[in-house]
Amino acid sequence: MTSTTAGPAVTNAPAAPTAAAAVALHPVPLGASRSTAGFWFDRMQANRRQALRTGYEKLETAGNLRNLRIAAGREQGEVKGPIFMDSDVYKWLEAAGWEYGREADEEVLGWIREITDVVAAAQAPDGYLDSVQQVRGKGERYTGLHWSHEHYCAGHLFQAAVAVHRSTGETGLLDVAVRLADHLVATFGPGRNEEVDGHPVVEMGLVELYRETGKQEYLDLARWFVDARGHASIQAEHGADPTYFSDRVPVREATSPEGHSVRAVYFTAGAADVAAETGDTELRDALVRQWEGMLASKTYVTGGIGSRWDWEQFGDHHELPPDRAYAETCAAIGSVQWTWRLLLATGEARYADLVERTLYNAFLPGVSLAGTEYFYVNALQLRHGAHAEEERSVANGRRPWFDCACCPPNIMRTLSSLDAYVATRSETGGVPGVQVHQYTTGTIEAAGASLRVTTDYPWDGTVRVEVERSPGEFELALRVPAWAQGASATVAGTALDVTPGEYLRVRREFAAGDVVELVLPMTVRVVEADPRVDAVRGSVVVERGPLVYAVEQADLPDGLPADDVRVRVAEVRTAQAEHRPDLLEGVTVLHLPVHAALAAGTTPLYRPAGDDPAPQAAAETQVVPAIPYYAWANRDLGAMRVWLPRA
Amino acid sequence: MTSTTAGPAVTNAPAAPTAAAAVALHPVPLGASRSTAGFWFDRMQANRRQALRTGYEKLETAGNLRNLRIAAGREQGEVKGPIFMDSDVYKWLEAAGWEYGREADEEVLGWIREITDVVAAAQAPDGYLDSVQQVRGKGERYTGLHWSHEHYCAGHLFQAAVAVHRSTGETGLLDVAVRLADHLVATFGPGRNEEVDGHPVVEMGLVELYRETGKQEYLDLARWFVDARGHASIQAEHGADPTYFSDRVPVREATSPEGHSVRAVYFTAGAADVAAETGDTELRDALVRQWEGMLASKTYVTGGIGSRWDWEQFGDHHELPPDRAYAETCAAIGSVQWTWRLLLATGEARYADLVERTLYNAFLPGVSLAGTEYFYVNALQLRHGAHAEEERSVANGRRPWFDCACCPPNIMRTLSSLDAYVATRSETGGVPGVQVHQYTTGTIEAAGASLRVTTDYPWDGTVRVEVERSPGEFELALRVPAWAQGASATVAGTALDVTPGEYLRVRREFAAGDVVELVLPMTVRVVEADPRVDAVRGSVVVERGPLVYAVEQADLPDGLPADDVRVRVAEVRTAQAEHRPDLLEGVTVLHLPVHAALAAGTTPLYRPAGDDPAPQAAAETQVVPAIPYYAWANRDLGAMRVWLPRA
Repeated sequence: MTSTTAGPAVTNAPAAPTAAAAVALHPVPLGASRSTAGFWFDRMQANRRQALRTGYEKLETAGNLRNLRIAAGREQGEVKGPIFMDSDVYKWLEAAGWEYGREADEEVLGWIREITDVVAAAQAPDGYLDSVQQVRGKGERYTGLHWSHEHYCAGHLFQAAVAVHRSTGETGLLDVAVRLADHLVATFGPGRNEEVDGHPVVEMGLVELYRETGKQEYLDLARWFVDARGHASIQAEHGADPTYFSDRVPVREATSPEGHSVRAVYFTAGAADVAAETGDTELRDALVRQWEGMLASKTYVTGGIGSRWDWEQFGDHHELPPDRAYAETCAAIGSVQWTWRLLLATGEARYADLVERTLYNAFLPGVSLAGTEYFYVNALQLRHGAHAEEERSVANGRRPWFDCACCPPNIMRTLSSLDAYVATRSETGGVPGVQVHQYTTGTIEAAGASLRVTTDYPWDGTVRVEVERSPGEFELALRVPAWAQGASATVAGTALDVTPGEYLRVRREFAAGDVVELVLPMTVRVVEADPRVDAVRGSVVVERGPLVYAVEQADLPDGLPADDVRVRVAEVRTAQAEHRPDLLEGVTVLHLPVHAALAAGTTPLYRPAGDDPAPQAAAETQVVPAIPYYAWANRDLGAMRVWLPRA
Repeated sequence: MTSTTAGPAVTNAPAAPTAAAAVALHPVPLGASRSTAGFWFDRMQANRRQALRTGYEKLETAGNLRNLRIAAGREQGEVKGPIFMDSDVYKWLEAAGWEYGREADEEVLGWIREITDVVAAAQAPDGYLDSVQQVRGKGERYTGLHWSHEHYCAGHLFQAAVAVHRSTGETGLLDVAVRLADHLVATFGPGRNEEVDGHPVVEMGLVELYRETGKQEYLDLARWFVDARGHASIQAEHGADPTYFSDRVPVREATSPEGHSVRAVYFTAGAADVAAETGDTELRDALVRQWEGMLASKTYVTGGIGSRWDWEQFGDHHELPPDRAYAETCAAIGSVQWTWRLLLATGEARYADLVERTLYNAFLPGVSLAGTEYFYVNALQLRHGAHAEEERSVANGRRPWFDCACCPPNIMRTLSSLDAYVATRSETGGVPGVQVHQYTTGTIEAAGASLRVTTDYPWDGTVRVEVERSPGEFELALRVPAWAQGASATVAGTALDVTPGEYLRVRREFAAGDVVELVLPMTVRVVEADPRVDAVRGSVVVERGPLVYAVEQADLPDGLPADDVRVRVAEVRTAQAEHRPDLLEGVTVLHLPVHAALAAGTTPLYRPAGDDPAPQAAAETQVVPAIPYYAWANRDLGAMRVWLPRA
């Protein structure tokens, strides 16, 4: 259990391509990319100190670990919970693994060993492992693979095992994963069982396990799964609608994601891993096209995806309601995973832009500031008097756990590995390079360089990168977000050309102590949607830096319901920013001039329309604070809106 | 089986109060109120000639009748379909009953007798009857009443038995219903089993059976069910969310319907029956308040209700998306049933107004012009490129039947009994009265008067009512819809005062041959929503007479997607109406001046907002036909929208 192996040299980070992979960029390992203070560091520390421990306890109280003990014959009784209960254990283990990679911790290692022991004990002699199926299925396996999540649980186990192995060097969980993967290889594929799991993720897991072990058959099986999907075989076998399962159109032909949003983006993320390791540029280009389709008509302004509550699905093109936004936290995480892989593959800044937007505005709202309560669904509007009739409704506020608890440990593993999304390294024409994609105070050791990043991002737009050690000539690339019109930069005091939406590339023989300073203007921006997004017609969103803002009832005076806030765009541009260290663990609020909607309560629901739209709001201007959307629902829960109708 | 009984004198119509009931108005029996030509007559004839026969066949092919034969021991095998399969049989039987009431038909009577024989054979010796539960439940009854629909199926049986008895005088089905009702009375109520069914309808059924048989215990049980709901007992017993089941708030305290929309309005309709028969004005007033709440913030412009796909529920206040409108056809029917009962109770025109709006624009879209294909869901918008991934999606077009086939036979029974919603009778201060609520060419025999109505409604607004026989002094009341600003009327050539939203009441000693002529202006109206309905901000609806209009791709030139239609309100008012007998079985189209949205395809999904909204549409005006919304999707299925954004 505590033995270690060398294994192939793979970076200690998620989705770390092999040296032979067809990628432009390579991740920087956890520990070598290290946040040390500031916005994300605080979230990561809350995750490490609070959430990880709470999660460990929840796995016991919710029954996940008991299920495994029952499967292992260590305990009697009936397994409980959804069929994919094991996956919560694995996502938590993955989080614990990355946490150990950030910084060694004996208590965390003890938990990992303890739970690994339970997982290993539950595994069948031939490698099969799925506690709920083992107990409830009474010997049956893979008979309802479209719903059983057997490969899904395996995929999460593989990801966990890789994280634990990369971070701790211990092979206990990896051995379990390899036995299960060998069983899958023996069981599935051409001429064997040719079904695909209803819920992708095994593709990512198998490629990572290939990277960790060098076993080609894992990559081959992942590639086979990628191309086996999309031919409506689930419908043929089980009569189920293929769209939901990303099984209607082959991934090489798809132009826009559809169906269950988490399934869709986990699948494309796995396909991107396959494309990278096999050098399959046709597949990569198809994934880029599909990603562009998602951005063109199926992405919320927050980066959130999946607009439909029913079946947690992508909607039609431009179907993006703010009030009934589903925008599942797990879908945001899957989008980051997919987008990150396209960034590695291509090196294009637009992918890092979406990662930023999604992390701040679609992922982070999913967790409370304390780090221990969660939104499953991330609506962009909550009306006054909304009634919470479903567990997942935002009208319940964030909750400590869910019957279907996919989101909480998914958030944990993402925060635990977040440092890995900060920077990458490259080698172009013999010149080493470091690319900084996300801005956080900390240190980056990569490509022979040692960098110290200092910033108060996202509150302030100045990013200072000091080269503490240089390998001689190298290229430092800093992402300039597409929103950062007017950005400027200097290197060692000399001004540089800066183009928003591209990387600022500084290639030179850096001297120790050289500083590159990038200044991203933190102006208040007002954004509207393509007019085909009917649900937000006549409304705008306020942004500042990478953050989407919201108005929340807790900040509004009596007599001004959030429902009734109206704005004039020219006034919004003048909103003053103020950093409030005392508020919501420190946020920059925008003092937003707003108007109250005219006494709507006295009108009938439908009424004659005037030739021109009637005045919607009172002339009088009130100034109210807008807060970053991610921070809402951390005080008294009340009405909230991101999209603000024009007065 | 063919014996007849007199029974108490109850009007041959649905929801016919006893003479002692606390109601302002009484229905006119089928046959005495008789459509003979025109709009609704054509729909009713399609229903009689096509749908009723197709339904009879579907009950066999879908397995409903087989389930009953299996329960009867006449056939071996497993029952199939949802747990409420029997209810489709009963709704069809009810339709057949009312059809026989409209006009005797030996083939229909033969079907009724044949199916009654199967139903009777399936009934258990103690009166219990639910074929799916009898076979699958293996002797268990009422153990999962929140989902089992056992009372629900009973309620539909009672309604069917009453319809068949009132129309044919035969007691076969009534005897089955009485045995089951007696079993329910013996089993449920205070001190007995105190659970309520998860799906209301038994309340309406029991009151109708009370009216038919005079058995007080049926009314008592209905009253008990009405007050037993709303105390979260379903949650206490089964852990299920009470909102969905109308079980969160007692009906006497509720201010707005919530949860599953069909459940909610079937329940309030039954409660209205109880209030009428018990003279419970507190209950009636609570229902009026709840109805007003529905109208104030939870009703589509079509009259449709229930905006959420997930769990088929009412949304929050003002949550009324047109694209993802659920607006189930059955919910529209339930709304008509509830609203009709409030009309009988109060005699107020606003209820008949909503019945009209709902019948034309929320109920009728549910059935094809041929009468044999159905929408389950009634979206108010279908985008270009929408993908049909669910059976119920409008992107599939109307379908011949559904796995959950509640809507088709519900439409059948509504059309079969539609004549009963046309007129009522009253007696006020000794003066008999006839109220005409809906306008269709036909005859009305009521309150000693004989009336002949002639109209080309809804295409033309002139309604001519000739008094062919008068009982001496009586009051003829004609509904003047609230939308009919500028309406005028004459009696025997003399002008009358007319107030839209009220009844035009003409009380006099009519002479045979006297004519009342009402002229309702068929001007084109443009309507907007309360600004709190965020989903249709900046958009308008075009109406003419009782009809809501839509633009459908089939009528638009190449290069003008329905998605991109924009309008100027002043221009819309000038739209010319043209009756097109050749189109869609005859519709009046509106030649609508529209503008194409500016090349939206080239803009990013989110973009900087100008101080004022950017021009949304081309200056060039095109004139395209708008069609009544009910008629959409009867040609090539394409994009459609009811709410038209302002240019």
